[in-house]
Amino acid sequence: MEPIIDVIKSRRSVRQFLDRPVEDDLIAEILEAGRWAPSGLNNQPWRFVVVRDRRRMASLAECTRYGAIIRGAPLLIAVFLDEDVMYDHTKDTLACGAAIQNMLLAAHGIGLGAVWLGEILNRKAEVCRILEAPGSMELMAVIAVGHPAPGGSDPGVRRDISEIASSERFNKPIF
Amino acid sequence: MEPIIDVIKSRRSVRQFLDRPVEDDLIAEILEAGRWAPSGLNNQPWRFVVVRDRRRMASLAECTRYGAIIRGAPLLIAVFLDEDVMYDHTKDTLACGAAIQNMLLAAHGIGLGAVWLGEILNRKAEVCRILEAPGSMELMAVIAVGHPAPGGSDPGVRRDISEIASSERFNKPIF
Repeated sequence: MEPIIDVIKSRRSVRQFLDRPVEDDLIAEILEAGRWAPSGLNNQPWRFVVVRDRRRMASLAECTRYGAIIRGAPLLIAVFLDEDVMYDHTKDTLACGAAIQNMLLAAHGIGLGAVWLGEILNRKAEVCRILEAPGSMELMAVIAVGHPAPGGSDPGVRRDISEIASSERFNKPIF
Repeated sequence: MEPIIDVIKSRRSVRQFLDRPVEDDLIAEILEAGRWAPSGLNNQPWRFVVVRDRRRMASLAECTRYGAIIRGAPLLIAVFLDEDVMYDHTKDTLACGAAIQNMLLAAHGIGLGAVWLGEILNRKAEVCRILEAPGSMELMAVIAVGHPAPGGSDPGVRRDISEIASSERFNKPIF
């Protein structure tokens, strides 16, 4: 097993998948990872909808210009914030981000590939309609998951640590 | 090494710490984990301020009713969203949540304890002043980190998967 830092650093967005379903036990493990995210007041505001039905996926693909990724994926996990249990929109959104990241890491850790689709939020009302979401649900993201196709991942580029971190206060170098 | 799912599931909020500093290389590893979070358009909107100076920490402790945790911690990492690189407040907040979760997991993975402090956001203007934050910075969270004291972690309770996940659409059971 890799140290967690290596799992974190080696994870990449994977946008191309093998034509092969994701096994139920692996889906369960991904959801379990999302379930264990932290949240303010432990309100666990995230809700997940697992989509594998090709017709429903085709409808979702129409909601984003990255529809090709959805059409090529065997599995989607739509992530919602349930405003019925919300206590602070910013904090609950952060918690959903933590749950999404847990699921991306879990997928990577078990050998799957995944990509976080955000552009689809531009048509979130339509996604809510397709997934028959109650009125309290705000779409946060759709994650496409599958067994990764060779060469389908991105290079991974990040700002230098000196650009994003400082010591004691802003504008004081770290280390 | 534990599988990632076990790291995710065994992580708890740790609120009591040993009176012992956190080594620089461990701080670097935590920041590195945050740095590798995913973000929309790869804009990496997170900014981190590492605080170890006792006087500055005492000022921050005054900004929250959980000041005792801050006073008992050897290290804080304040996390900000830089609105100068923001493209969508919800998506950038989600990305900061992913970065925070990466840091919490990394801390746990290397044997440290940490807790995500959110209540301090009620006085974010004051935190920004104490950390000399430019006007573009929105406080997202403060993470307290340290070597965990025995018995200082919480039990960890989560909703059943059937409460938070469904299949194909809302209100259709998963598995």
